[in-house]
Amino acid sequence: MTAPNRNTLWARAILDEIVKAGVDAAVVAPGSRSTPLTVAAAREDRLAVYSHLDERSAAYFALGRARRTGSPTALVCTSGTAAANFHPAVVEASRARVPMILLTADRPPELRDSGANQTIDQVGLYGSAVREDADLPEPEPDARKLRSLRTTVSRAVATARGTPPGPVHLNVPFKKPLEPVEVPGDVPDSFADEHPLAARGRDGPFVRHSVGTPTLGDAAMAAIREDIEGAERGLIVAGPDDAFGVGTSATAALAEATGFPVFADPLSGVRFGPHRDRATIVGAYDGFLDTRVYQQWADPDVVLRFGASPTSKALRTYLAAVGARQYLVDPAGEWREATFTASDLVAADPTRFARTLGETVSRSANAEWHATLEEAADRHWSAVEAGIDGDLEGAYLHRVVAGAPDPATIVVANSMPVRDLDRFGRPRDAALTVLGNRGASGIDGTTSTALGAGSATDDPLVLVTGDLTYFHDMNGLLALGRFGVDATIVLIDNDGGGIFHTLPIEDFEPPFTDQFKTPHGLDLSASEALYDLSFVAVEDLSTFDARYRESLSAAGTQVIAVETDAERSHRRRESIQRDVVDALV
Amino acid sequence: MTAPNRNTLWARAILDEIVKAGVDAAVVAPGSRSTPLTVAAAREDRLAVYSHLDERSAAYFALGRARRTGSPTALVCTSGTAAANFHPAVVEASRARVPMILLTADRPPELRDSGANQTIDQVGLYGSAVREDADLPEPEPDARKLRSLRTTVSRAVATARGTPPGPVHLNVPFKKPLEPVEVPGDVPDSFADEHPLAARGRDGPFVRHSVGTPTLGDAAMAAIREDIEGAERGLIVAGPDDAFGVGTSATAALAEATGFPVFADPLSGVRFGPHRDRATIVGAYDGFLDTRVYQQWADPDVVLRFGASPTSKALRTYLAAVGARQYLVDPAGEWREATFTASDLVAADPTRFARTLGETVSRSANAEWHATLEEAADRHWSAVEAGIDGDLEGAYLHRVVAGAPDPATIVVANSMPVRDLDRFGRPRDAALTVLGNRGASGIDGTTSTALGAGSATDDPLVLVTGDLTYFHDMNGLLALGRFGVDATIVLIDNDGGGIFHTLPIEDFEPPFTDQFKTPHGLDLSASEALYDLSFVAVEDLSTFDARYRESLSAAGTQVIAVETDAERSHRRRESIQRDVVDALV
Repeated sequence: MTAPNRNTLWARAILDEIVKAGVDAAVVAPGSRSTPLTVAAAREDRLAVYSHLDERSAAYFALGRARRTGSPTALVCTSGTAAANFHPAVVEASRARVPMILLTADRPPELRDSGANQTIDQVGLYGSAVREDADLPEPEPDARKLRSLRTTVSRAVATARGTPPGPVHLNVPFKKPLEPVEVPGDVPDSFADEHPLAARGRDGPFVRHSVGTPTLGDAAMAAIREDIEGAERGLIVAGPDDAFGVGTSATAALAEATGFPVFADPLSGVRFGPHRDRATIVGAYDGFLDTRVYQQWADPDVVLRFGASPTSKALRTYLAAVGARQYLVDPAGEWREATFTASDLVAADPTRFARTLGETVSRSANAEWHATLEEAADRHWSAVEAGIDGDLEGAYLHRVVAGAPDPATIVVANSMPVRDLDRFGRPRDAALTVLGNRGASGIDGTTSTALGAGSATDDPLVLVTGDLTYFHDMNGLLALGRFGVDATIVLIDNDGGGIFHTLPIEDFEPPFTDQFKTPHGLDLSASEALYDLSFVAVEDLSTFDARYRESLSAAGTQVIAVETDAERSHRRRESIQRDVVDALV
Repeated sequence: MTAPNRNTLWARAILDEIVKAGVDAAVVAPGSRSTPLTVAAAREDRLAVYSHLDERSAAYFALGRARRTGSPTALVCTSGTAAANFHPAVVEASRARVPMILLTADRPPELRDSGANQTIDQVGLYGSAVREDADLPEPEPDARKLRSLRTTVSRAVATARGTPPGPVHLNVPFKKPLEPVEVPGDVPDSFADEHPLAARGRDGPFVRHSVGTPTLGDAAMAAIREDIEGAERGLIVAGPDDAFGVGTSATAALAEATGFPVFADPLSGVRFGPHRDRATIVGAYDGFLDTRVYQQWADPDVVLRFGASPTSKALRTYLAAVGARQYLVDPAGEWREATFTASDLVAADPTRFARTLGETVSRSANAEWHATLEEAADRHWSAVEAGIDGDLEGAYLHRVVAGAPDPATIVVANSMPVRDLDRFGRPRDAALTVLGNRGASGIDGTTSTALGAGSATDDPLVLVTGDLTYFHDMNGLLALGRFGVDATIVLIDNDGGGIFHTLPIEDFEPPFTDQFKTPHGLDLSASEALYDLSFVAVEDLSTFDARYRESLSAAGTQVIAVETDAERSHRRRESIQRDVVDALV
């Protein structure tokens, strides 16, 4: 028997192509209409299947996993609002260039707009946030239709991996029966023998994709090389990374060959790692890039920018102020620079571009420029290491990085933790993979993102999060017990939105406290009774250090909660920076 | 001073028009980009403002409130994934015809597609799920622009209240400063004096809307009347209701005049209420409409259907099987009948249609037809009342309805509670407002829907929910402490998706337990330590009755949890029905 019925045949072909295209995990939310897909996923030995109850958390878990692996995760849900719950993670995946395959089950087309139960308009549900959106035809044991299906699915996976990578959406209508019950005569017994290609596909993906990467020609390369060789001072800026970002070794080679220092965003993949012996990796810029400081400096002549727009506002302001020729290198040729002062767009594969440039450019480092930046960085790190204590939220980010094992995966939340990591996370030689949802910078699915990333690696996993972010995706913690992901969660609890203390709205009371800071008074330690974790509150930095060390070597998930005062932390943050700047001017 | 800056002027005009159009509540999620809207909402004395941390819960809270009042609720969020989190509730509002005004703050247009932080494509974010979608121009202290703004906003509210009602989306870009800081020269001091209409609007809404309701002409009315008068047996089916559904008194008048019994969905607004003395309200149909029963009956000749497609599958199957002429009455002229056997679509205001028909039709009831249905209903209720015990989940729905005060608001979750309410909730004279998210039948925001409904009424509030549904929107419970909503929450905890025991997938193990039933093992009593509620677990039906009574008169929110076995309950459900059917054939 080829398959007990047409739905089973159809769903198996979809999952078969997904697996053959190299996808190794599916996140499934339970539902009835999606039964053929769920059953097909569950029987695939080649696929790790994660069952999630909240579709929003499910989608962020899939995002986290794909972010960590660079390979798409598949997602399955039933029809109706379930699919709409994927939307926040789809938006993040779109902006952050994370590949996902969204399989939304649907009622058959004749039920659309008929008032049928759990039937909504799912075609184009994610709008411009997906790279491709196909409304599949209804299942049928027809050879051409199945070849079309296999072609569509293998192409959808290729699109998800494309340039830029991102989410793709396949809407999959089914009519009953949804279960793998035998429907006599539905799929002819001889179907697979007569149509082996349609029924079983090929050994590999149905369509193999060989896709060229955008590569500059010699003349364009020579012009850029000339620019770099003629520069007195240069800079490489590595912004938040994605699967197609510049590789660390290519960055190091480029930095070595050009003698340009690298300003490395904590999410760039470049701030941490053993390549530091070949390049000057600067991670302190958010602490010293003040107008009073850099107005004393000569501007760089050339800036080479990779990745997305940097997290640091100080860095973005600096880059907008300098008179440099600025190259944005982006494989998709998209513009990711919101001050509109960059002058050159290079649509090319950044790793290949950096490597080729590194191999051919001939220039020596400007010792004075290096010394200037190194002095500033040293000032910053001295001030930080002398001045931090438990009052400063950034202190925990500093310690998280300093104390992380090699290798480790660190996921960091918006809004303040990633900014504090930027300023207080000192470059190290250890291979730390640092991830954050910086595509759309939401706080809605961070826990699931972290646990999804953790599901894909044997690295020790650390999540640094705030109380609002922890609250927002508390449902995501269900994954701990279900999949045995082992994490260390550092929870910086300042009872509300600490970020608002950094904004002018702080001076307007009311409505500051009620509508912006929004203290919730939640005792988040109660999450221990719901989920598979142990929760410990610490009062000071040295206790934190001890608990952090313990957790990294202990089994299971520990939440280490530190209670902070957002306003006080912000004032300390400012005073440390003031000291650094004062010392430099 | 007219306003400290253009953003303040602009946001105040938006909120002013919303309030003048009769909106009395706004649900606000904290964020930075939305600051002008949030500040304008907070200063509006005419507006109840609810601050929510999770935008998904926020949107469902707004939906619940609007569902209970019939009047739109406004929603405010910041840019980015926050807006995507509204999507599930927007889909439900669209299908269920619940009015909402979505105000999503956005970055200014020059930052779109520039890689700027928290900047996504918000234009058309909700696709076909909104009735109207406007991308507002940027704020400017210009008289024509402000008149245009006031016109757009007052028209958007009118569209939300239109036929059919539903969500509307206004995307509102702002550039800094977002706070009400004074920007000298930005808004001329004399602006309000020179342009009073633009700056202050009118006494009422900027544009008053007088909108006709679709009303049938005499000839069309006469033809339908003739049909009804010539019918031997007739039936009125009241499906799930919305703000434009048929009024209960009109239904009663129509039932009285035609002598047609009424099959009343629990969500129709017709099953419960004092109008029962004028009409035969049947609520037992889901228990007795079996082929073996109704194949003994003569078919009705005419069926008048109001509202959405009924919750009861037995009723839908029956209606598809009978040879009647079936009128679907829908104010929007939409087709809400997914078996495609209804023969006539009446696009007319259902209340006016029912009233006019009731006043002019002349027909006497068919006593035999009434007796047939009444006997069947009596059998059902006798079997239910003799046979229920704590093993049957429907027993709790029966008791919730029987013991509810008059008046009360009852919110009931998908998937099993609403079906059990349909079968076990016996009609009463009490004014029970029963609500459920039956537009798209999701389980994702039920708690927030209930608490939003509760925020709009002094009725005692009861929510009946399952464990997956309770888990899915646990964040919604934050509203309890924040807004002092007082609820009785009946939690039917069968540790997973009980609905799947009613589906054929039950016979496929694996993957039944892991991928469908999905037991989570959560100790939901831990929610007591997080939220402002008391949690009590009860073991049997009589203890339940006592706790339920106590909770209805006690202050604060009590969760009464009953642990059930979904499979056993389903078998009991089947056996009661089998007894009823056996007795009737």
